[in-house]
Amino acid sequence: MREVAIIGAGTTKFGELWEKSFRDIAVEAGLKAIEDAGISGEEIEALYGGNMSAGRFTEQEHTGPLIADYAGLARLHIPTTSVEAACASGALALHLAVLAVASGWYDLVIAAGVEKMTDVEPDVAEDLLASSVDRKWEAIYGATLPSLFAMMARTHMERYNTTSEQMARVAVKNHANAVHNPYAQFRREISVESVLASPLVADPLHMLDCSSIADGAAAVVLCAAEEARNHTDSPIYVKASAQASDTISLHDRRDITTIDATVCAAKKAYQRASLEPSQIDFAEVHDSYTISELIAIEDLGFCNKGEGGVVTAEGETEIGGRIPVNPSGGLKACGHPLGATGIRQAVEIMQQLKGEAGKRQVSNAEVGLTHNIGGTGGTAIVHIFSR
Amino acid sequence: MREVAIIGAGTTKFGELWEKSFRDIAVEAGLKAIEDAGISGEEIEALYGGNMSAGRFTEQEHTGPLIADYAGLARLHIPTTSVEAACASGALALHLAVLAVASGWYDLVIAAGVEKMTDVEPDVAEDLLASSVDRKWEAIYGATLPSLFAMMARTHMERYNTTSEQMARVAVKNHANAVHNPYAQFRREISVESVLASPLVADPLHMLDCSSIADGAAAVVLCAAEEARNHTDSPIYVKASAQASDTISLHDRRDITTIDATVCAAKKAYQRASLEPSQIDFAEVHDSYTISELIAIEDLGFCNKGEGGVVTAEGETEIGGRIPVNPSGGLKACGHPLGATGIRQAVEIMQQLKGEAGKRQVSNAEVGLTHNIGGTGGTAIVHIFSR
Repeated sequence: MREVAIIGAGTTKFGELWEKSFRDIAVEAGLKAIEDAGISGEEIEALYGGNMSAGRFTEQEHTGPLIADYAGLARLHIPTTSVEAACASGALALHLAVLAVASGWYDLVIAAGVEKMTDVEPDVAEDLLASSVDRKWEAIYGATLPSLFAMMARTHMERYNTTSEQMARVAVKNHANAVHNPYAQFRREISVESVLASPLVADPLHMLDCSSIADGAAAVVLCAAEEARNHTDSPIYVKASAQASDTISLHDRRDITTIDATVCAAKKAYQRASLEPSQIDFAEVHDSYTISELIAIEDLGFCNKGEGGVVTAEGETEIGGRIPVNPSGGLKACGHPLGATGIRQAVEIMQQLKGEAGKRQVSNAEVGLTHNIGGTGGTAIVHIFSR
Repeated sequence: MREVAIIGAGTTKFGELWEKSFRDIAVEAGLKAIEDAGISGEEIEALYGGNMSAGRFTEQEHTGPLIADYAGLARLHIPTTSVEAACASGALALHLAVLAVASGWYDLVIAAGVEKMTDVEPDVAEDLLASSVDRKWEAIYGATLPSLFAMMARTHMERYNTTSEQMARVAVKNHANAVHNPYAQFRREISVESVLASPLVADPLHMLDCSSIADGAAAVVLCAAEEARNHTDSPIYVKASAQASDTISLHDRRDITTIDATVCAAKKAYQRASLEPSQIDFAEVHDSYTISELIAIEDLGFCNKGEGGVVTAEGETEIGGRIPVNPSGGLKACGHPLGATGIRQAVEIMQQLKGEAGKRQVSNAEVGLTHNIGGTGGTAIVHIFSR
């Protein structure tokens, strides 16, 4: 296996993009990544797309050739692969793209993530989100995604004395970071008080504990590391790409205050990169809910189990803290267009590692990690990148 | 890249499986393949699943971990990848599984295809099928999948004097083959007259020119060729796995009597296998409509362009003919549970190459080919296998 590099990245603005279609945003992100890589579309040998539910959100399946077609690449007849792993679809597309180049199967590929969620009513979107968990044994009895994460939060609170204030601090931090991210859906600061005063979605999770329904797309161009400097002066190297699964239903898990798929994927990723958690400079983690970020930073080894709330409240995960988490604003403030998120995280890592993140720049950013999960953790995918 | 072998295969009965759920049939096929390979589930390092539209057919996404979970593999936390390429989803899962083993990323993996279509009303299923073509510029104006293939058929008839009788011969042959296939949905012979007397779905395609809505699942176990004989005395080798795309909409194609994605994927496959079309002993091709098989055998090089109807009418594609096509009964008579078809084709190839196909056995079957397309040919995937 050879080393793989990212040589270009692009993202649309995330949010309610009512004037743009699924194909519009996919192509916009792709063309930005291609332009950023300084390549021509003809050089792309394969396309990997992450998308959760275009079939239900937009009544369109077969999105691989659709995107290649509308990007003007149809005449090249390139192989296109569309993958679905619920909210982790984007990272899965990246994972396959990394493997395709690492193995020598292809030399230059594009990985994209896209979701157009706002063309359906919010209650329909909520039901679609619940198709990422066990429809037969969870969703059908009324368990929505926020209610399942609420159970994880409640158990975490009971066992580790985690508080609603500590969870709110995740949202406050991520909103503060997003103020400086031009692609984020919510670019305004919020306070712990406003989080706690926002309506309860599923006790103890308030509205401002939850990431949002959004439209968005992001893309990255990958090539063999040894070729990367022919394209750019500042390639980003993929040090590890690892994936793991778990039971789809929460009630079958060993422990609902941890996501074993994350633990397992992280362990593999650290091993492949020959790195310890303490050697990660910053991370983009899956904060679909504020409790998700607390559990993620524990499972990724950035703090001990149960201490996620405390380290967050102490500011350790802020930009400038010991281990900055979600400098982009995360899913919480960027918005969470399901299939796009995993790739958007990689785009943020690239901008940070290149020192191009402006006012949200993490200082001395040398090694970054992304963490993307599907459902309540049935899938987890971890990538590690370096300059 | 190392060579890859199939060491086990399994399939459910195809048809209206009302008493079984999506997860039931996926697990049934998977366990059959595992048993056939003589391995234990613990040896499986990754799962690749092909599925088009479980989100809409069964309101369940995130099918990768779901299937691993219900197969009892959740505690292994294996990576699962679910892919969508419309009706070619199964072959795409196989393609990724082949790459994963060929590259050395994994040593032993399972590829499965599954679709549960009969839990929705037929008109809903028809609309779901239309999400495999361009929703915005085809389906929204009323163009369904059969109507688009009808245009291909009409043009083929005009240009090459192909007749309705010749097309009907495809259905007659495939039904005759399926009589001997215990897994096929329709195990009864039909006549040219009955095809022509069946109701018109989209002129010139009659009901019996069309493959059916069905439930079904199929799975194969793959490992490195050098390890294959540790598992079985009769491994099947994957000589080539190639994929290509085209415009998603039919009206943007260079020529609608050919599927360029098939031509392109076949060319790559023959090149990788160092074989000519004349060296293929038999094939399982994508006969979603009878015209599809005629176009496929031309595009795969089994006859000249425009001669598909004639060679079919002359019996060249029958079992015992020059190049037996769809000895299983094809999509027409086996039924076409979208994501399952590409894997079921590989299961048939394996049974034929092992000489275990009973009364539908192709004599001297040494090299077999599968051909699976998505939509009207926005995706095409070709595999070549040998003993």
